[in-house]
Amino acid sequence: MPTRLHDLAPDHFEVASRRVMARCEELARVTATPGEIERVYLSPEHARVNRLAAEWMREVGMTTRQDAAGNQVGRLGGADLPALMIGSHLDTVPDAGRFDGIVGVLMALEVVRILRPRIDAFPFAIEVVAFSDEEGTRFGKALLGSSAVAGSWNDEWWTLEDADGTTLRQAFLEFGLDPGRIGEAARRPDELVGYLEAHIEQGPELDRRGESLAVVSSIASARRFQLSIEGEARHAGGTPYDVRHDALLGASEAALAVERICRAEHHIIGTVGQLEAFPGAVNIIPGEARMSVDLRGEFDGARDRVWDEIERELYAIMGRRGLRWRAHEIHNAPAVLCAPLLQDVVRQGIVSTLPRGADAPASIFSRAGHDGMAIGAITDVGMLFLRNPDGISHHPDESVSAGDVALGIRALTESVLHLAAEPA
Amino acid sequence: MPTRLHDLAPDHFEVASRRVMARCEELARVTATPGEIERVYLSPEHARVNRLAAEWMREVGMTTRQDAAGNQVGRLGGADLPALMIGSHLDTVPDAGRFDGIVGVLMALEVVRILRPRIDAFPFAIEVVAFSDEEGTRFGKALLGSSAVAGSWNDEWWTLEDADGTTLRQAFLEFGLDPGRIGEAARRPDELVGYLEAHIEQGPELDRRGESLAVVSSIASARRFQLSIEGEARHAGGTPYDVRHDALLGASEAALAVERICRAEHHIIGTVGQLEAFPGAVNIIPGEARMSVDLRGEFDGARDRVWDEIERELYAIMGRRGLRWRAHEIHNAPAVLCAPLLQDVVRQGIVSTLPRGADAPASIFSRAGHDGMAIGAITDVGMLFLRNPDGISHHPDESVSAGDVALGIRALTESVLHLAAEPA
Repeated sequence: MPTRLHDLAPDHFEVASRRVMARCEELARVTATPGEIERVYLSPEHARVNRLAAEWMREVGMTTRQDAAGNQVGRLGGADLPALMIGSHLDTVPDAGRFDGIVGVLMALEVVRILRPRIDAFPFAIEVVAFSDEEGTRFGKALLGSSAVAGSWNDEWWTLEDADGTTLRQAFLEFGLDPGRIGEAARRPDELVGYLEAHIEQGPELDRRGESLAVVSSIASARRFQLSIEGEARHAGGTPYDVRHDALLGASEAALAVERICRAEHHIIGTVGQLEAFPGAVNIIPGEARMSVDLRGEFDGARDRVWDEIERELYAIMGRRGLRWRAHEIHNAPAVLCAPLLQDVVRQGIVSTLPRGADAPASIFSRAGHDGMAIGAITDVGMLFLRNPDGISHHPDESVSAGDVALGIRALTESVLHLAAEPA
Repeated sequence: MPTRLHDLAPDHFEVASRRVMARCEELARVTATPGEIERVYLSPEHARVNRLAAEWMREVGMTTRQDAAGNQVGRLGGADLPALMIGSHLDTVPDAGRFDGIVGVLMALEVVRILRPRIDAFPFAIEVVAFSDEEGTRFGKALLGSSAVAGSWNDEWWTLEDADGTTLRQAFLEFGLDPGRIGEAARRPDELVGYLEAHIEQGPELDRRGESLAVVSSIASARRFQLSIEGEARHAGGTPYDVRHDALLGASEAALAVERICRAEHHIIGTVGQLEAFPGAVNIIPGEARMSVDLRGEFDGARDRVWDEIERELYAIMGRRGLRWRAHEIHNAPAVLCAPLLQDVVRQGIVSTLPRGADAPASIFSRAGHDGMAIGAITDVGMLFLRNPDGISHHPDESVSAGDVALGIRALTESVLHLAAEPA
């Protein structure tokens, strides 16, 4: 097995990077909201990007299928061999950037384009996976696509509803998928040799260091909750303060408590991304408020201690205001350690892009969640981070440079070659 | 002119009250939201209740018209005479009760039913007005119906949008009204002798006193604002606290500041009824938050001082968090004093329902806004409050007793007779 790519044209990675950047723009035009980027699970936009991805997979010689959870999969290599999965996701948050997830799928296709001539010599097949739901935007539950692949689908999710009251089950049927066949998306550990993903950092660390690429050491531990707070909706004019039970003021105190408690704890980040008051009229005291809490930490224990403290504070706030409340946990993922072997091949991949004698590549802990959190249950996970200027992500200003994408494609290709060269 | 109603059957007011209560139920079934009550301006439900009101107006001998702003008007009496307007509104907040506004319109019809045989002897005609928009639910601007009648319509309102992006102008056209003819809804002061309105208290004062009816002394001074707060939407996981500009946390602090500042000031009530974070995803730091502020006070000066203090606090909060913000004033109504003569006839009307030697009726300041705030610009305003158990209003549990409605119909009828007996 070759471990270097001497036979490629010198500008090969720049050409590949330009194609990736152009395709990011093309996918950005597939959106539910004109002028913004928004593609959620099981939407018409999801179907359109799957068709585009399938076309591009076939262009590099892969056979393609859409799995039972709407993930788009391409495969190249021996039918009897276990597969190295490389990929990321194509769904987005509302008003998203162009690169989160997307660039990782497109880079994987460039790796396949480069390695295709030598695939017959590989001890594994390569599958490119474009996961269908990583962000959890539509149903409030993240990693639906990769959970299906990991065989960790939970039948309680079928009744999750989107903002319009459509259940996940209905959305499957409307998309043309059969909920009864969801199990067919699941892969067995013996079918896989590992999972590699390239992703923008979604944080400022590489930008602060002035470096292009990093090895990911582990993916954050995360818990998500939906809080529902109930008070009493009354007329804003006629109701004196002493008889009010204002659910929104309780929610406001809760949001500030999440910030205060998390800031006091190292390596824990808490965010209230959703908050809404009901009935939502200018002249009615809110009788109900709903809000989300997203907690991430390097270690599960610290994260859980912080939630316990938030819960104690919620009891105190709601007690003082005479409000009822409940927290519903919608997501709980332990920290996922990237496999030492895959960390090592990613590190070697990055080293191949650096001048001789350069410092060792950065090793970064990912505070953001990734599909690897689900996939880690069935196979080893390795990740490569690309520099993300100012750490701006989940925002239209999210960016990555074409130069860093070229280096990333090279590093990812070298990583695969290093893995292929490993003794079985 | 007779000043007492000796010739009516003893149970006449109870029969009238039962009809009012039954019609409140009938109108409650005209709703945009099954299982709740919601009727907003220029909706299909608005058209349906106007048709019902017109039918009931004709039943008591009135000629009817829908004016250029969608208010439903009935008239009885000499065509050349100025009119006493009696009425209230038929629109509701979301998830409303059955009585706010509605009971006042239906009581006015019972007054007309009783006085119809003697209308030819009256020095004024009677008009019953069912105002089309008092709550401001749909376009965020209250008193649209009564402002049109008062001739204080502002052409800047045409571009106000509802939650679906429909402008007020489009809604007029879809309802079958001509925006170019809005001026025709305006009444001249010389066409009117005054405006009387019966309304539930929307506060607990009469219930605490154990009394059925009160004279209203004045209607609160009110200002409403829409606040827009802008920060930076970034990924919830990857963005450390020191680079966050979380618009929702700024809004939460602002909502708590409104409460704190208003509680410190006597006779001022402040409410944040609407608050929402955008883009509103569980894993994105809110880059934008929008919220309403509703301020009411017995005196304009105190209310304005409180707003100035809130503004100073907003500068401090947003400055600390690196957020941009602006406040857009959507409503500003000075306190409206009920006319001494109309306060007096309402007082005499209530006295006629009380046993001899009873205490004088309560005189209450209305913290809630009413159509009289707009109508006060063109004619004298008088109001009668009905007991509202627990002060619960703008809520499905809002109530008024049939007994109090019977007393209210009697008091309102007597008030009109006292006004008719006044020397010109």
